[in-house]
Amino acid sequence: MYDVDRVAAALRGVLPSDRVTTAPEDMIVYSYDGTWLVGRPQMAVTPLDAREVAAAVRVAADEHVPIVPRGAASGLAGGAVPAFGGIVVNMTRMNRILDIDRVNMTVVTQPGVVTASLQAAVEREGLFYPPDPASLRQSTIGGNIATCAGGPRCLKYGVTRDYVLGLEAVLPSGEIMRTGARTAKNVTGYDLTHLFVGSEGTLGLVTEATLRLVPLPRARRTVMADFSTVSGAASSVTDVLEAGIVPCAMELMDNTTILLVEEHLHAGLNTRAGALLLIEVDGDPEVVPRQAEEIAAICQQRANGVRLAGDQKEADTLWTARRSVASAFGKLRPHRLGEDIAVPRSKIPEAVERIRDIGIEHDLTIAIFGHAGDGNLHPNILLDLRDEDETSRTLAAAEEIFRVAMQLGGVLSGEHGIGLLKRDYLAENLDPQALAVMRAIKRTIDPQNIMNPGKVLSPN
Amino acid sequence: MYDVDRVAAALRGVLPSDRVTTAPEDMIVYSYDGTWLVGRPQMAVTPLDAREVAAAVRVAADEHVPIVPRGAASGLAGGAVPAFGGIVVNMTRMNRILDIDRVNMTVVTQPGVVTASLQAAVEREGLFYPPDPASLRQSTIGGNIATCAGGPRCLKYGVTRDYVLGLEAVLPSGEIMRTGARTAKNVTGYDLTHLFVGSEGTLGLVTEATLRLVPLPRARRTVMADFSTVSGAASSVTDVLEAGIVPCAMELMDNTTILLVEEHLHAGLNTRAGALLLIEVDGDPEVVPRQAEEIAAICQQRANGVRLAGDQKEADTLWTARRSVASAFGKLRPHRLGEDIAVPRSKIPEAVERIRDIGIEHDLTIAIFGHAGDGNLHPNILLDLRDEDETSRTLAAAEEIFRVAMQLGGVLSGEHGIGLLKRDYLAENLDPQALAVMRAIKRTIDPQNIMNPGKVLSPN
Repeated sequence: MYDVDRVAAALRGVLPSDRVTTAPEDMIVYSYDGTWLVGRPQMAVTPLDAREVAAAVRVAADEHVPIVPRGAASGLAGGAVPAFGGIVVNMTRMNRILDIDRVNMTVVTQPGVVTASLQAAVEREGLFYPPDPASLRQSTIGGNIATCAGGPRCLKYGVTRDYVLGLEAVLPSGEIMRTGARTAKNVTGYDLTHLFVGSEGTLGLVTEATLRLVPLPRARRTVMADFSTVSGAASSVTDVLEAGIVPCAMELMDNTTILLVEEHLHAGLNTRAGALLLIEVDGDPEVVPRQAEEIAAICQQRANGVRLAGDQKEADTLWTARRSVASAFGKLRPHRLGEDIAVPRSKIPEAVERIRDIGIEHDLTIAIFGHAGDGNLHPNILLDLRDEDETSRTLAAAEEIFRVAMQLGGVLSGEHGIGLLKRDYLAENLDPQALAVMRAIKRTIDPQNIMNPGKVLSPN
Repeated sequence: MYDVDRVAAALRGVLPSDRVTTAPEDMIVYSYDGTWLVGRPQMAVTPLDAREVAAAVRVAADEHVPIVPRGAASGLAGGAVPAFGGIVVNMTRMNRILDIDRVNMTVVTQPGVVTASLQAAVEREGLFYPPDPASLRQSTIGGNIATCAGGPRCLKYGVTRDYVLGLEAVLPSGEIMRTGARTAKNVTGYDLTHLFVGSEGTLGLVTEATLRLVPLPRARRTVMADFSTVSGAASSVTDVLEAGIVPCAMELMDNTTILLVEEHLHAGLNTRAGALLLIEVDGDPEVVPRQAEEIAAICQQRANGVRLAGDQKEADTLWTARRSVASAFGKLRPHRLGEDIAVPRSKIPEAVERIRDIGIEHDLTIAIFGHAGDGNLHPNILLDLRDEDETSRTLAAAEEIFRVAMQLGGVLSGEHGIGLLKRDYLAENLDPQALAVMRAIKRTIDPQNIMNPGKVLSPN
């Protein structure tokens, strides 16, 4: 075991001492992320650039100390929780956008920039960074890269992975590595950029990213439709896509979610609906209104009610309903376990039905919402963590939900990552040979296992 | 050194003997790819499924024999040339499309399916597989995955990488590994799928791929414009993108290419033009014609002449000009070295000018065409390989072209891969730490270095 005083002194030797802390109150702050998991670090550093990150990593390497990257800590899988203690690297002051290149449509950014701030900055230049995790007003680009964050718009635009052209990262050795390029096409050696995206800080600490941008869509329109059944809603999703329209978002809310949101917001949602779809199209101002009407007509064939937002204000009201699910849940029960399975789109009705049965069986409220277009569902189990019995029923239900995802040909995590929360289920969801290759890559790049240890892969 | 007779006997022990060959005439056939590089194997096998591939790889592993995957051998970097001899694995009989899933918009395919056949099959279901390398009527999906193939349409739709959801691959140990899933979103462990895409068969042999599809666009329209200078054409590319239009293709031809194509085809191209742009938009039938007109108007501001194809037949004529560059070059000189650099879009004029100077300096004809939207240029040096002096001038010029790409912030290869052809320049284009990590990954996955040895990474 390392000597905390000695390691802290070594960190103070390479970083200004006001950016190294061992204060107990700081350690408490750095113990949490967006889950209920807790892990106390012994030290934290706040670097300003890659060289400072590298200096901290070299100390960690020399002293065999775990080192855990942390952005806004809004993660939903425990990835930023220092499960084995050690040094937290607080990236929030590496928050500068370094270059927006309007002609080549790229942005170079430090990892601590908040996603929404980056989006606002590029939108001022007429450009668009599409990935839109629900946490975008808190989460950082570094965290988005660590988990390969998604969001509603990923149906049309793809996930974080699809926008990362290159990275600068500090390896577990303390060396600074640059991957990728500023060009959209690049097959110059192995694709390390995309190996690092989604690796949750277990292979290195991202200190800079070059992101691809697209032109800012000039129009958007929203359609809301309510259905008797999830199956009807899911069929309408397929109908729209088969008509050749790719909306930027197709969001699903089940009856439980609708009820809780309506109670919270009084937005005029049909609380008797079995499911609600919120569909957004974006693009050319001349085609978007017509596409919205076509979508409304397609949904009309299966829906009970269809609403086409007349203007952006009305659309914003509808989207507020979707975005307020988390706070709506908080009114019923103080805590929630937010899951993140992805299944083939055609399996959504079966997944929802089986998750509902799991809720009944374990006497739990499970609200389901998600991104219907890409089969990414967020079953949220609502609970009070002070109730031990409810907590253990929640964990049992979560395990059954994972199994449903896998049985339907899906995955444990669509966009939140594996972190600590799903680590013990990873082996069930992966081919043993693939898992063995992942472990071999981790051992090769991080032989001391100091880089965010215990995340993604279990320690053996 | 291995004993060929013993290895061949071992292969005949695990595969039907009519699908194992050591015949000299077969070995000659398997010595080539789309470059002028040559490497003679001693054996070749033609497997029908992953188990047969695995059996052949186990023989190679047991006997320490190089094993080289081969699709249509249309590659342009020497990736399929058996530089160190050994066993060629001919994938062309693993040519079945296993499943087209219309609802979930995925296709599961064996690697030996020709790209154009796969595209035709999914288009019959109203679906679209966008990557379109120029070789699409010869090249196989396995080869496309090996090199992360691109093509004109990648500006809007992305490259092969963006369509691969999951892979089955035989590892150098002979084990069969499955990566990824059928879902668009997936952060379940490290992204091995994208590590294997573009790895040119050096980490394993792809035996099956699950590919993402999109709805088939219902309309397309083509605009051709000719300019006095490459710089004018490049500025129009930026103008169009800044107007918020993302065409599916923006193809550039320089004056040398125009001259040679016109001489070959008599298509009515303006042979005095310094550059020609061929732009295609696709999508909604109601918006595409208007977008084409908008593009024509934008180009008109800088172009000498603009032609808007009235119908698909006229569009096909224009595209035939673009697709026939290779055969047009063959009329002037019997051989060509086709390069594949990518630079930031804004650097295209400077790249073209400097490459032209290189041609003058070395007394060589260099025709330049490429994908202007994403900065991917194909300078083609035309030569006669029987002329030793011209050949050595060509190699010197190619090296200078690589350096131009790197000096302009670009990369050695946009879509052809590194193979043998650019291997010795890789270290100049990569960060040393990134190269070290690539080598470490290669050693970890293929410790015996039997899997397509000598490609991408030089042997040390």
